[in-house]
Amino acid sequence: MKKPLIGIIMGSDSDLSIMQEAAKVLDEFGVPYELTIVSAHRTPDRMYSYAENARKRGLKVIIAGAGGAAHLPGMTAALTTLPVIGVPIKGKSLEGMDSLLSIVQMPPGIPVATVAVNGAKNAGLLALKILGTGNEGIAKQLQKFSDTQNKQVKDKAKKLEKVGAEAYLKTI
Amino acid sequence: MKKPLIGIIMGSDSDLSIMQEAAKVLDEFGVPYELTIVSAHRTPDRMYSYAENARKRGLKVIIAGAGGAAHLPGMTAALTTLPVIGVPIKGKSLEGMDSLLSIVQMPPGIPVATVAVNGAKNAGLLALKILGTGNEGIAKQLQKFSDTQNKQVKDKAKKLEKVGAEAYLKTI
Amino acid sequence: MKKPLIGIIMGSDSDLSIMQEAAKVLDEFGVPYELTIVSAHRTPDRMYSYAENARKRGLKVIIAGAGGAAHLPGMTAALTTLPVIGVPIKGKSLEGMDSLLSIVQMPPGIPVATVAVNGAKNAGLLALKILGTGNEGIAKQLQKFSDTQNKQVKDKAKKLEKVGAEAYLKTI
Amino acid sequence: MKKPLIGIIMGSDSDLSIMQEAAKVLDEFGVPYELTIVSAHRTPDRMYSYAENARKRGLKVIIAGAGGAAHLPGMTAALTTLPVIGVPIKGKSLEGMDSLLSIVQMPPGIPVATVAVNGAKNAGLLALKILGTGNEGIAKQLQKFSDTQNKQVKDKAKKLEKVGAEAYLKTI
Amino acid sequence: MKKPLIGIIMGSDSDLSIMQEAAKVLDEFGVPYELTIVSAHRTPDRMYSYAENARKRGLKVIIAGAGGAAHLPGMTAALTTLPVIGVPIKGKSLEGMDSLLSIVQMPPGIPVATVAVNGAKNAGLLALKILGTGNEGIAKQLQKFSDTQNKQVKDKAKKLEKVGAEAYLKTI
Amino acid sequence: MKKPLIGIIMGSDSDLSIMQEAAKVLDEFGVPYELTIVSAHRTPDRMYSYAENARKRGLKVIIAGAGGAAHLPGMTAALTTLPVIGVPIKGKSLEGMDSLLSIVQMPPGIPVATVAVNGAKNAGLLALKILGTGNEGIAKQLQKFSDTQNKQVKDKAKKLEKVGAEAYLKTI
Amino acid sequence: MKKPLIGIIMGSDSDLSIMQEAAKVLDEFGVPYELTIVSAHRTPDRMYSYAENARKRGLKVIIAGAGGAAHLPGMTAALTTLPVIGVPIKGKSLEGMDSLLSIVQMPPGIPVATVAVNGAKNAGLLALKILGTGNEGIAKQLQKFSDTQNKQVKDKAKKLEKVGAEAYLKTI
Amino acid sequence: MKKPLIGIIMGSDSDLSIMQEAAKVLDEFGVPYELTIVSAHRTPDRMYSYAENARKRGLKVIIAGAGGAAHLPGMTAALTTLPVIGVPIKGKSLEGMDSLLSIVQMPPGIPVATVAVNGAKNAGLLALKILGTGNEGIAKQLQKFSDTQNKQVKDKAKKLEKVGAEAYLKTI
Repeated sequence: MKKPLIGIIMGSDSDLSIMQEAAKVLDEFGVPYELTIVSAHRTPDRMYSYAENARKRGLKVIIAGAGGAAHLPGMTAALTTLPVIGVPIKGKSLEGMDSLLSIVQMPPGIPVATVAVNGAKNAGLLALKILGTGNEGIAKQLQKFSDTQNKQVKDKAKKLEKVGAEAYLKTI
Repeated sequence: MKKPLIGIIMGSDSDLSIMQEAAKVLDEFGVPYELTIVSAHRTPDRMYSYAENARKRGLKVIIAGAGGAAHLPGMTAALTTLPVIGVPIKGKSLEGMDSLLSIVQMPPGIPVATVAVNGAKNAGLLALKILGTGNEGIAKQLQKFSDTQNKQVKDKAKKLEKVGAEAYLKTI
Repeated sequence: MKKPLIGIIMGSDSDLSIMQEAAKVLDEFGVPYELTIVSAHRTPDRMYSYAENARKRGLKVIIAGAGGAAHLPGMTAALTTLPVIGVPIKGKSLEGMDSLLSIVQMPPGIPVATVAVNGAKNAGLLALKILGTGNEGIAKQLQKFSDTQNKQVKDKAKKLEKVGAEAYLKTI
Repeated sequence: MKKPLIGIIMGSDSDLSIMQEAAKVLDEFGVPYELTIVSAHRTPDRMYSYAENARKRGLKVIIAGAGGAAHLPGMTAALTTLPVIGVPIKGKSLEGMDSLLSIVQMPPGIPVATVAVNGAKNAGLLALKILGTGNEGIAKQLQKFSDTQNKQVKDKAKKLEKVGAEAYLKTI
Repeated sequence: MKKPLIGIIMGSDSDLSIMQEAAKVLDEFGVPYELTIVSAHRTPDRMYSYAENARKRGLKVIIAGAGGAAHLPGMTAALTTLPVIGVPIKGKSLEGMDSLLSIVQMPPGIPVATVAVNGAKNAGLLALKILGTGNEGIAKQLQKFSDTQNKQVKDKAKKLEKVGAEAYLKTI
Repeated sequence: MKKPLIGIIMGSDSDLSIMQEAAKVLDEFGVPYELTIVSAHRTPDRMYSYAENARKRGLKVIIAGAGGAAHLPGMTAALTTLPVIGVPIKGKSLEGMDSLLSIVQMPPGIPVATVAVNGAKNAGLLALKILGTGNEGIAKQLQKFSDTQNKQVKDKAKKLEKVGAEAYLKTI
Repeated sequence: MKKPLIGIIMGSDSDLSIMQEAAKVLDEFGVPYELTIVSAHRTPDRMYSYAENARKRGLKVIIAGAGGAAHLPGMTAALTTLPVIGVPIKGKSLEGMDSLLSIVQMPPGIPVATVAVNGAKNAGLLALKILGTGNEGIAKQLQKFSDTQNKQVKDKAKKLEKVGAEAYLKTI
Repeated sequence: MKKPLIGIIMGSDSDLSIMQEAAKVLDEFGVPYELTIVSAHRTPDRMYSYAENARKRGLKVIIAGAGGAAHLPGMTAALTTLPVIGVPIKGKSLEGMDSLLSIVQMPPGIPVATVAVNGAKNAGLLALKILGTGNEGIAKQLQKFSDTQNKQVKDKAKKLEKVGAEAYLKTI
């Protein structure tokens, strides 16, 4: 198994079904990653050592997902010089606004690269774009990914134009 | 100088003019406290040692104020068995909603006793109420404080009833 | 049965399934409590006598849960020198924002220690942290509770790292 | 001086400059009122006796203004069979959303007739509309008030149409 | 059938299941009312004639429910000197915030007595409180309603205290 | 088949069940339209050519629906002199507020005619109103549509007045 | 003076300084318009006759601005088959959210083309885009307007690139 | 002058005073950048060519700031495989919530690394963290920056502890 370049961490295993989307996109690109649970509030010691050792362990980017008063991304960012991507997880109230603001509104000095509420897939892609700044291979894969997305939309458009809305809706 | 019972900490000296209100009410009650700056994001090491040593240093309650993605109260609460009171500080956008949600929406297991946006005075009073659970003297002072507040409102009411709104407004 | 130290009150029996979480954590710690219904709006007389007698009846902390225009925590806090912990209950509209703001935005002079929307478990833990300021036994239990939480997260992390996301998700 | 029919109360003298607008419109209609300070949180005893005696003292409607976690209107409504009109007062954060939700989101059983944030003038007019349900004279005055408003807008419209926007703006 | 004193109107029959709660409480009090559909946007002519004739037809209060950009309560209020009670109906997005703000934020001159989102029962009770300003019988019924509410809560409290949370929850 | 006058585009086929409502109302009016998928983010090239060619292809109005950070309506509007109607689509979090603000808050210079969250039917009607500014036939159809709506509400009102709320609710 | 094609109306003369921006852009394009005050709430009669006569008077588009519970655009739209453009005006609280939602969240059947909070300039441009659907001259002017905007930004970009941020900021 | 590695773009020169903060931090680190105006809405052609050529011109990261319905960051991200950092700029209404949601809520497939409202300094630091994934020198500078921040807070803390709140406040 190759040494992981991306660390995917989340505050709780209840975030796993969402955060898995980040892993899936990295799998698709063949980029090695690790995925685990690190709670800022329940395991601050683990968070410290995880964040402080991340760079020397060879990680390039950390993706951190958390809900509610989501402190994991920001605290991790405070403890490493690696870029940290924050994924706000929607909870049972407030429609994800709490985790979004807890992650994105970081004070000057400690940035977190925030993506959409439950936007773990984009977190994976953003990590790839970051790797791609120094890796032509990944950059090319990203271009291909983008081209495929583009083609898929156009194929769907063609189909919709051909069969019409009624028929199309029955197929999705 | 007596050993402090309350620790008042804040993420930045820009929070000081607000957080001072907590100190003032403690001064009024003659309860010893300490007041300093501890940034979750810029001094995570300091936050750790502050929170982890707070109880053994004799503190009973920690009051923590922070703005934006306010992680100081929640992270401090994660690192001590002392009750932590969180004061959301209003920033230059979003009307304080970001700091409020970042502080109050803590996950199960790590409570933060949150007060109103910029509500540092109430943080001080809440600390006193907590001390008062085991201290008859403070409990009596709180009753007196409450009685005084009560009387002040009634005095103002009497004055307003007497002089009328127009005249009253000129005096405030 | 031991004399209750914590009073858990709620505005309506529809809040019970949430507020029960506060009771459960107190049970776990073996701290005696009472649990009942006190409506600020439908039984203001009961609220008054409850709040005014709480201290002399031996209560140390009151936990009050309410939804919508949630006045129970704040009004109770106005009538006692005990610390009052407010639990905003999410209703059928507005995602709990109404009860959160109705509880947390108290005016200077009358603090309510507010926890997250539906955060009754944390209300129980906060009450224990308050008791723990004057009770070494409870403080130690809190430390143990925290250690257990810490260990549980680490065990889950180990399991996730071992079996991977796919397999893990099937077990939860 | 005639016996007041309307009671205008507010939680703090800082609300007076807003709440005065309610008084002014009652003055205009020649309806006797009283205006005073009653704080739900700082003078709960006064609020109780005010609300419980309001009807027998001859009041017909209570107008209650408060900011933040605004409990005065709802608690007053809980203690009297008189209709209570709530005026949310905008505070220094959250743009008045806190007081609005604290007043309007009352649970089934205890209504508060809520007007706009800082909408004290409308509170006065609503009180008059309520009186007007049983008083032809006031109903006629209301019709006249409405006709005058109507005419004033039309006069302004005429002026604007005549002089144009540029010139008009210089006159206001 | 007695002549209706209260008019309950709603913008659409999709609001009926909510607005019916207003009717039910009026039935309980034996106060005659009428209930119908009046759309500000789809039947502006009907709204005009309804509002303009309401007073002369003997109505004392109008209760108007509407969702989304809810204009029915405010426009009705603009066309009559009767008090108008607005009920914001929650729609399929925005959690009722749209209808709440559309109803409560009326400009100076035209008040709407706004109740909670989906708060039709309270709209009925507020109408009764308004009638009660000039009707001792209704005022007494309101007092009795309040006393019954009070007793019901106390009975539930007694039951909860007796059987405990677990057992109680099984009964509701 | 007649040359389309209205272009209905959407960012994703997941928007189709909503956007279809715009098509249905155009069908009802017999106005030719086209309906397809154009993603601002996944097919920016397609969006450019679609928008830039729309006028010369004979389209009169573009209806564009998108969710989340909804850029399709605004970007399309930037690339054509045709009026663009934006339909905010509600996503899985934030209740549609994200798409609403992303569409409506356009900077000076590039307007988007925004309708309600998920308001595709109104987008169709607005397109017809725009066509109707230069087409008497469509204007007359719109008047008839409006008259029919008016009559339908009145019929429902009559039915409700006749059978009462209980019986009516059983029929819907 | 040419017969107006666009009617610009506003609920109050306090909206004039904002709404004037719509007029200015029409002036720039040489399109005749009228500008006046029509209050939905204070002059419902005037609103009715204005809206009902607009088409036969030769207007093609109505621009309606209003604040708070902004009913003017939606009610006008209910009374004419002309397209109505709504401009939400920001008031003294709630940051314009109240007027935005009151205007944009119209129910199916009665669309309002909503622009940004205080977005009167865009309302004017949208009206021109609507006129441009049937008027090649205006369409060409719009293209030129767009080209000029494009060039202005590029000129500014060139200047900024040349002089740098420090120097540039001194010139604005 | 060295070839720029970072492109800082903004939708309007009114964003310059905020966006300059990103440039300042890059200056501090000695990392070459370019700074210019690119409007998604007014210069879509320029945005296209800027984004599409960015990688081949040698840029590694793009920082894009925009207000209101802020489409520049997301559209740029759609047109390049480089990572794009979005800076929401606060406008004259809605407290920056509109630009925040317009930037952060990107659909799956096209991530934008969003920072806080007006958080341009953090955008610069995030760009540096991204460069630092492949550049030991920058990584070390980041560690030093972090250490300096840490020390500055501790120095302020020391000063505050020494002189007290009153005296400290006079010095800031």
